[in-house]
Amino acid sequence: MGILVVGSIALDTIETPYGSARDILGGSATYFSYAASFFDKVSIVGVVGQDFPEEHIKLLHSRNIDTDGLRVIEGKTFRWVGSYKDDMNTAETHSTCLNVFETFEPIIPEKYRDLDVVFLANIDPDVQIGVLSQVNKPKFTVCDTMNLWINTKKASLTKLLKMVDIVVMNDAEARMFADTPNLIQAGRHILEKGPKYIVIKKGENGALMMSRQFSFSVPGFPIENVKDPTGAGDTFAGGFVGYLAKSARLEKASLKKAVVYGSVMASFNVEDFSLERMKSLDEKEIEDRYLDFVNLTNFHF
Amino acid sequence: MGILVVGSIALDTIETPYGSARDILGGSATYFSYAASFFDKVSIVGVVGQDFPEEHIKLLHSRNIDTDGLRVIEGKTFRWVGSYKDDMNTAETHSTCLNVFETFEPIIPEKYRDLDVVFLANIDPDVQIGVLSQVNKPKFTVCDTMNLWINTKKASLTKLLKMVDIVVMNDAEARMFADTPNLIQAGRHILEKGPKYIVIKKGENGALMMSRQFSFSVPGFPIENVKDPTGAGDTFAGGFVGYLAKSARLEKASLKKAVVYGSVMASFNVEDFSLERMKSLDEKEIEDRYLDFVNLTNFHF
Repeated sequence: MGILVVGSIALDTIETPYGSARDILGGSATYFSYAASFFDKVSIVGVVGQDFPEEHIKLLHSRNIDTDGLRVIEGKTFRWVGSYKDDMNTAETHSTCLNVFETFEPIIPEKYRDLDVVFLANIDPDVQIGVLSQVNKPKFTVCDTMNLWINTKKASLTKLLKMVDIVVMNDAEARMFADTPNLIQAGRHILEKGPKYIVIKKGENGALMMSRQFSFSVPGFPIENVKDPTGAGDTFAGGFVGYLAKSARLEKASLKKAVVYGSVMASFNVEDFSLERMKSLDEKEIEDRYLDFVNLTNFHF
Repeated sequence: MGILVVGSIALDTIETPYGSARDILGGSATYFSYAASFFDKVSIVGVVGQDFPEEHIKLLHSRNIDTDGLRVIEGKTFRWVGSYKDDMNTAETHSTCLNVFETFEPIIPEKYRDLDVVFLANIDPDVQIGVLSQVNKPKFTVCDTMNLWINTKKASLTKLLKMVDIVVMNDAEARMFADTPNLIQAGRHILEKGPKYIVIKKGENGALMMSRQFSFSVPGFPIENVKDPTGAGDTFAGGFVGYLAKSARLEKASLKKAVVYGSVMASFNVEDFSLERMKSLDEKEIEDRYLDFVNLTNFHF
């Protein structure tokens, strides 16, 4: 199939109860593409500054990720500084310096325009809509978003929801968008806006997928040593979209397995900072944890 | 088999965003026994005051629950006043009047002492230990607890954990007991104290069961209209213990299905105040929702 991802590439400075790290590789497009690369070919559109270490590009290439759409421009790379308290569920942002990302206007290279799957990572919904206008009838499209756009650009976001097949959000975002504390009501409300499927990420509490026809829910994979949850949502999306791209169609059985693969990939990601755990990951570990997930949740046999 | 439950019977005054109700039937032993009665014969030991409405006793009898161990003594019934905000996950307690429950010293009637299954609902762990000293080798024992006893009677609670087969707690209690924010670490810590299994209830986020050999986890059943979550944990325990009693042994497959039945029963309970939804429940609805739960979580076929 081939997946196009458009999103942020960042250098993160993070503190958790289990350690801290400075200027480590992060960003939604980074986490997404690394995770998705275990399932299908990924091409990335993004922007970094001249300070972006060459080794990070090499890391993406090591996963066969196409970075021809990654522009290096004058200025500094997007930087995020955040920390997590004990519960590791919510990040506290200390600073966000968009730098070169502030004026990011993605231009989709000609050779990416026919890719079958498009993932619009969390960016301004007007920019996300702009990306869709540049591609040629992808087989399916998936978008993410964040509280900032729900607060400031709800009309654009609502317009975007009519244009995508699947929206991925976390539970707080879904509740905020629909203005209801009940997650099921929130999911139904968002489905009414247009997408065929919504996947609600609930951090350590798993994920819930809803369509007009069915719901599917998984608990979180139990991880005893969560070191850094940064990027878990984007890694989930990478596993989810990656598996869907590989299975080549949006049908119930693939969608369910895709949610499980998303959960599996996210469960690895939180075991260390940045992409450290992912770097040592291989296909066998992914399949083994998928089977662990079957054992964790199966009560039929 | 036959299940003995020892716990509270209360009159609750509750306010939620969806309504309010005054002096309605509540209490851990009440919710537990009503839910468990769909699976096995239940006998209840508890105490109420002379103000306790006769209709509530009749309601328990309508489910074939044996109330010969329910003492009616001079004074008022245990009363709890609480409310829930929008998120419906945490109750705010406005007042707790223990009344006749304050000096509750359960005496297990002779005819209950050989029952196969004992459920110690949330009461003072010294009282729970006292109950165990009065029964004759039950096939298995299950206990619940609460934050109060973790704070004030941890030594007694720890002693109790050595004596039971299964402990049921909610996530906040497990974290508090083990003094760690990580639920998996908390579960392992508690298992080290003695019980063979721990079931951690996570409200709308489902439940996690752990043993030294395996873990099993379910998401919450999606309920669009949660009216009142009071008693959901005890109703879960009723479905869980009831199914285990019916299946007559503690083995992996039954334990897993028991967690699902617990979730199913709790999902009905939250749909209305007190036992209102449970009163109209029949076996077919339970089996239908069990199948819905299979469809919600199954990704194998």
